Parts: sequence; structure tokens; C-alpha cells
Amino acid sequence: MMILGIDPGTAITGYGLVEKQGNHLKRIAFGAILTTPETPTALRLHQIYCQLKTIIEQYRPDMMAVEQLFFNKNVRTALTVGQARGVVLLAGAEAGLDIMEYTPLQVKMAVVGYGRAEKKQVQEMVRMLLCLNEIPKPDDAADALAIAICHANSYKQLAVISKQ
Amino acid sequence: MMILGIDPGTAITGYGLVEKQGNHLKRIAFGAILTTPETPTALRLHQIYCQLKTIIEQYRPDMMAVEQLFFNKNVRTALTVGQARGVVLLAGAEAGLDIMEYTPLQVKMAVVGYGRAEKKQVQEMVRMLLCLNEIPKPDDAADALAIAICHANSYKQLAVISKQ
Repeated sequence: MMILGIDPGTAITGYGLVEKQGNHLKRIAFGAILTTPETPTALRLHQIYCQLKTIIEQYRPDMMAVEQLFFNKNVRTALTVGQARGVVLLAGAEAGLDIMEYTPLQVKMAVVGYGRAEKKQVQEMVRMLLCLNEIPKPDDAADALAIAICHANSYKQLAVISKQ
Repeated sequence: MMILGIDPGTAITGYGLVEKQGNHLKRIAFGAILTTPETPTALRLHQIYCQLKTIIEQYRPDMMAVEQLFFNKNVRTALTVGQARGVVLLAGAEAGLDIMEYTPLQVKMAVVGYGRAEKKQVQEMVRMLLCLNEIPKPDDAADALAIAICHANSYKQLAVISKQ
């Protein structure tokens, strides 16, 4: 099962593809879709949408996992992140992917096992779990991989629960 | 010049098409794209996007005018409106439309000439300016027509300024 994790944003949308093979997690690809502030908003959203569609067509993931917004962020941030999330969710829906959303707390619990984990701890766990030599860059790509790992681990837990 | 006004929202996205012929404004069409809360968010966004694309293909407007969010709304509202705005702006960008954004204050100033106008006053001016027998329903469609009228009038002002 291949999972596409996404950390949406207008300037940087991080993505990370993880394949789950039994209990093993394999990194397939990761990176970030970048747009510039000089570009009109609608065109930035178009760039995010088109590049994400290309990634989905190239790797053909089975599921998409997306970071939920912190609700303590401000209204302007919520609006701009919301716009990026909108086109991300649309690209997922058009590809027929199952889409799950996770809060930062859920991601930290699933990846580090501790809801108050620091960003660096999460990134280091991502590096270890995916057997990488270095922490993935940029941070948004590492975050996207963490979300994909969270989804892989949550599914594992659900499978365990369903067997009890 | 035909203008497509949009009042975006996940549950209701109002739209209104207005043709500007000299100093005259003509209503072409208006209505609302509705989605239900039982539908997963990504599919609701997909429905908004697909229906808006159909409207754009059918009427072939020259420009799109979109309502900007009140920044005094809460973060959750900003996120969900943002998601709907994201797919609306994407549909506009894909159709190659020029896209302008207007605040509710700008819309009230342009349509009623008074920034603190009540919602009903705006709707009544929309009815009069477009020579309609009744105020357009639902409210979101009337709001979308008001945004389109705002854009038409702003363009008129710009034209006057450029002649001076």
C-alpha cells in the first residue's frame, strides 16, 4: 500500500510517498512544490494542483493523508492554507484516492509516541523509520513523510483492533 | 464584457453572471452550487469545481470576481471557506480568466454607495440594477451578483480615471 502524505501551503506544499510492506516502511519519494509570492494566487493554486496531479499520476498512491490545520493559527493563515488544501483535496478526489486527515498531535503520537514531541524529534524519527542518511529537506517534505507514516501506523493499529 | 461573480463556500457557492453593455448591466444567469454535509469534504470540493467549470464553459465569461473573506470570522470558517475559494480560483485560472477580489466593504460601496449598507439594501440594489422582479434567491446568488456588479462598476471608474 502506497501512501501520499501532504503538508499543504500556498508557498510550500510538502509531499512524501511511503510504501508499507508488512511491518516495513519504505520511502518512495519526497519533495516540495514551491510557488512564488509574485505569482497571482489563482495561478499559484493552479501550479500546486498541476504538480500534485503529475506526482499522483507518476507514483499512483493508494491513499492520501493530509495535515489538518492548527486551529490556534490566525484567520489569514487559515484562509491561505485552506485554499492550498482545497486544490490538494481536489487532486486527491479526482484520482479516486481515499483521503484521511491528521492533526499535528496525532502525527506526533503516531511517529514519536509522544504528543508534545519537538519538530526535530519527529524529523529524526522519520529519518530512522525510513532508513535515510539525513533528515529530509525541506521541513515541509519531512512533515509530509511524517503524515504518511502516521497514516501507515494508524492503519496498522486499526488492523490490530479489528483482529481482537 | 461578461463578469462571473462568486461567493464561495463549501455548503453553498453562489454565482452570478452579469453582462456589461455600455452603461447598462444585464443579468445573464445566477444560482448556487449546493453540497451536503454527509459528503466527504474532498468530494464536495470536487462537486463545486466541476459545476463551476460547467458554468464557465457554458457562459464563457471574460472575468471572475470573488468575495474576499471577512477577517473577523473565525479560524474554522476561514479554513473551510478557503478550501472552497481554492477550487473556485483554480477553475478560474484554468479557464484563463482575469480574477479580481473584493471585500464586502468594497462591494457595498460599489453597489449601494455606502459601506455600512444592510444586506437587504445591497440585495434590493442588485434587483433594481439588473431590472429583476424579485430579489435573487438564495442570498448567496444575490451576493455573487453584487460582486459581479461591483467589478463592473469598478471597471467603469477605472475607465473614467484613465480618460481624465
